[in-house]
Amino acid sequence: MSYQLSELQHGKAEVRIVKVDRGLPDAPDTHVLHDLNVTTQLKGDFADAYLHGDNAHVHATDTQKNTVYALARQHGVATPEHLLLTLAEHWCAQPHVSGIDLSAELYSWERLPQNGHSFVRSGQETRLAYVEALRDGATTVRAALTELTVLKSTGSEFHGFPRDRYTTLAETDDRILATSVSATWTYADAVAGGLDFDAAYGTARAALLEAFAATHSLALQQTIHAMAAAVLDAVPAITSIHIACPNKHHFPVDLTPLGLDNPGEVFFAADRPYGLISATVSR
Amino acid sequence: MSYQLSELQHGKAEVRIVKVDRGLPDAPDTHVLHDLNVTTQLKGDFADAYLHGDNAHVHATDTQKNTVYALARQHGVATPEHLLLTLAEHWCAQPHVSGIDLSAELYSWERLPQNGHSFVRSGQETRLAYVEALRDGATTVRAALTELTVLKSTGSEFHGFPRDRYTTLAETDDRILATSVSATWTYADAVAGGLDFDAAYGTARAALLEAFAATHSLALQQTIHAMAAAVLDAVPAITSIHIACPNKHHFPVDLTPLGLDNPGEVFFAADRPYGLISATVSR
Amino acid sequence: MSYQLSELQHGKAEVRIVKVDRGLPDAPDTHVLHDLNVTTQLKGDFADAYLHGDNAHVHATDTQKNTVYALARQHGVATPEHLLLTLAEHWCAQPHVSGIDLSAELYSWERLPQNGHSFVRSGQETRLAYVEALRDGATTVRAALTELTVLKSTGSEFHGFPRDRYTTLAETDDRILATSVSATWTYADAVAGGLDFDAAYGTARAALLEAFAATHSLALQQTIHAMAAAVLDAVPAITSIHIACPNKHHFPVDLTPLGLDNPGEVFFAADRPYGLISATVSR
Amino acid sequence: MSYQLSELQHGKAEVRIVKVDRGLPDAPDTHVLHDLNVTTQLKGDFADAYLHGDNAHVHATDTQKNTVYALARQHGVATPEHLLLTLAEHWCAQPHVSGIDLSAELYSWERLPQNGHSFVRSGQETRLAYVEALRDGATTVRAALTELTVLKSTGSEFHGFPRDRYTTLAETDDRILATSVSATWTYADAVAGGLDFDAAYGTARAALLEAFAATHSLALQQTIHAMAAAVLDAVPAITSIHIACPNKHHFPVDLTPLGLDNPGEVFFAADRPYGLISATVSR
Repeated sequence: MSYQLSELQHGKAEVRIVKVDRGLPDAPDTHVLHDLNVTTQLKGDFADAYLHGDNAHVHATDTQKNTVYALARQHGVATPEHLLLTLAEHWCAQPHVSGIDLSAELYSWERLPQNGHSFVRSGQETRLAYVEALRDGATTVRAALTELTVLKSTGSEFHGFPRDRYTTLAETDDRILATSVSATWTYADAVAGGLDFDAAYGTARAALLEAFAATHSLALQQTIHAMAAAVLDAVPAITSIHIACPNKHHFPVDLTPLGLDNPGEVFFAADRPYGLISATVSR
Repeated sequence: MSYQLSELQHGKAEVRIVKVDRGLPDAPDTHVLHDLNVTTQLKGDFADAYLHGDNAHVHATDTQKNTVYALARQHGVATPEHLLLTLAEHWCAQPHVSGIDLSAELYSWERLPQNGHSFVRSGQETRLAYVEALRDGATTVRAALTELTVLKSTGSEFHGFPRDRYTTLAETDDRILATSVSATWTYADAVAGGLDFDAAYGTARAALLEAFAATHSLALQQTIHAMAAAVLDAVPAITSIHIACPNKHHFPVDLTPLGLDNPGEVFFAADRPYGLISATVSR
Repeated sequence: MSYQLSELQHGKAEVRIVKVDRGLPDAPDTHVLHDLNVTTQLKGDFADAYLHGDNAHVHATDTQKNTVYALARQHGVATPEHLLLTLAEHWCAQPHVSGIDLSAELYSWERLPQNGHSFVRSGQETRLAYVEALRDGATTVRAALTELTVLKSTGSEFHGFPRDRYTTLAETDDRILATSVSATWTYADAVAGGLDFDAAYGTARAALLEAFAATHSLALQQTIHAMAAAVLDAVPAITSIHIACPNKHHFPVDLTPLGLDNPGEVFFAADRPYGLISATVSR
Repeated sequence: MSYQLSELQHGKAEVRIVKVDRGLPDAPDTHVLHDLNVTTQLKGDFADAYLHGDNAHVHATDTQKNTVYALARQHGVATPEHLLLTLAEHWCAQPHVSGIDLSAELYSWERLPQNGHSFVRSGQETRLAYVEALRDGATTVRAALTELTVLKSTGSEFHGFPRDRYTTLAETDDRILATSVSATWTYADAVAGGLDFDAAYGTARAALLEAFAATHSLALQQTIHAMAAAVLDAVPAITSIHIACPNKHHFPVDLTPLGLDNPGEVFFAADRPYGLISATVSR
């Protein structure tokens, strides 16, 4: 029987590359690290490989891996986004390729004060970059962070929700609010505009943290909207942002049976299940 | 500044439920286990929670968790898909709800021979079920498996691919082919037709394995297409299937510098990077 | 200031090797897989490397990796234990080495029926082997399994425990008992005796499962002892066994507030915290 | 048949507790977080539970969990070590208990500047505390850190190691040195001396980082010794320290076949296998 083929993709996933910018002549020992995990996915006219095992159009995933290393050597890694844009331009010019999806994780390092070439991994969150390009079409640049874990020990309430037969949750006007923020945003005109992607990321991250802290929260939904709006306020190049937040429940332990009170001091940090709230906010 | 809100969702993720069907009167000690991890995501008219912290429309995620347990108690868990369909029907009838996304992981257990109520976890793969429903619209049922890890120690070749400046991979007419299959498929008319979801899953899984084994592979792409076509051949109710397969590279170790040959016997199983190939095949 | 050095070790961890035994002349297509993760740790006179960076005694961890591959090629992999014993003999004969600790994980595969060279990963648990050898001393062989996940849906009680000011747990005469067994055992005279390590492992695993199922449990402690004793009964070459079992709590959900009863049917499978019980049982 | 029982232990693992110190009267909104994962393991006269399912001596693991919360409420959590010492004292006074092993992980949080009760998770490493106590004997306090990931992009060499038949590694006088430090140390007279455990941990961590950065490394062994000696130099209360370091290999990519040079700029960060080096250094 004959079926329809679509969404044909192949590439190399999780190409771990550390690019060291060795020091400039006036500071040869002051290095810069770019620690990345790059994934490539070519799209194109690949049906014969699926149907007949004919690989004439299939750029080997090993070649895609080599190309990550080669272009990083030739063009450097100004930012994760710049490396992906360079890869996108390269691949969209190759035969049989109609487009490409690219992503990169970036791991951050903090320089130790003893010299210019010693580092300690820093931060909990992972920064991500995405580029989607078509040979005859648009290029989209997105960025994200995951696992930015934050907590407020007060300044969070939750009440006024519907009560039905299966509702048992008590209302509260003081609870711990904890979450691990995942946010993904889209840059407008990123290619043409020469955006400083590192600065944009830093500004977005700071806006998320500040809005989380500053918002007296009546619902995690409200905090999500405040964080999203803060990012859009702070970075004009961002056109929309999607935020997903687990509600990492911290339940006050009922110490009454043990003959003790618990005035908001002792909490059980639960793993599962967890609330999961999300929204997209756009200009 | 005022922004647009969209994709508003909230629910409870990873509700771990084990439903025990205790034995029938003629075999009271013969139990059946349903071991599930359920996630619910309501969609609806929730903007006031995001904008003002007004929760009047927000069915608490705790209530959504309770509802999973309550409906499992009342209606049982014939299959993961049936539980999700029951939840979808319940929630689409509640105020302020326009639709729901539901998913469930199923963990499989094998009965031990000593009695009817002792079990050992079995299988490597995870079975998944998805239901998407709209209050005033269609209900879609999908199923999936992940982490079905398979390997062929011969009967796999890879050659004839393009060679450019960055290509170094040698062609081969005998390699190990190993992958961890992720497949997601859609059922047509699942609700109306009274489909046996357990049987459909079992048939699809068997078709994947048989096609993997039986296909002499000139490309992982070819094996993916063969597996997808085998599932469509075997289960008429499936309308389309998406398969994504990492190419879990097993590199023959070069023992020549150690004064030894290696006639396809000693391999290094690499972690990263890995090839990643995917396709959708539809009727 | 001068300090004392001790417990100096170095080696290569997690050498992933897949050894394929290609078919015998009468069945050339029937392959056998040995899928291992080997770790080596040399002990010896290595202080100068720590004190002065003098590596004259330091067999490079890269050399240790190569040696795993080379000896597997030369001697095959009859069992994980045999490969480790071959490595131990090799290394204890090298200069500056006083002993070695070796371990291997084994991943199991099940042959698919379509031909002799296609496999699917099977089982949930991981098999382990350990060899500790001294140049001028004894060689110890141990084996283990981890993540053997089992569950009884009845036939488990827990009562009669002390009650103090902080005790709130109710007694029960019917609960779910679920655990993930980790067991490590020591073989006597394994080297001299020519033990069949695969058969011993299989017998031990079967004894664990049978004792788990057959024991009406008044405490997880009792089940642990029954499992340990069953292994010692079944495999005379085993001199002692250590078992550690998490008590993977399955709490019955209180459905009373929802207007429903719950006659031992609906459970919440908790992640953390979990009970953790262990013991060593020896001849 | 009758066997010997030993190493009988039971307790509650991974009790996740977040203790909030709410603000003092002059700064009621300035909170302090103690985010811990506590594990208890009682030792004692528990054989009857294993042999006969008689739980008269078995303090339920649920009671052990409650006790963590109760003592944290009553005594606070000055440091992880103090909470464990309080638990040890409590349990060693209970009937049937001969001793206890306790451990705690601590997750660190950094205060956000917007107010006194908003925090972001900080740091990559995990801090650990251990207390082992006997009813009629000594109490030992140890501390540890894991996953302190560090990297030097130059200032590391490796040469002069033995070359045998299986040695293929080239010598190098400039390589990346990367590792994830795990260090465990023992405090002398910690109980009597009123040690400031937080300060001791901070000093030890800083000494590890400074020694890593400042040591021109001829072997990871040399760096390990330098880090251990630095900790002993810096914290007089520490009597011995064990350090284990994976050698997280960063291999320079051979770009020659691609027509490019690679002057120490482009590296592949490998996952497995990895070197694993360890030592104990004592006064």
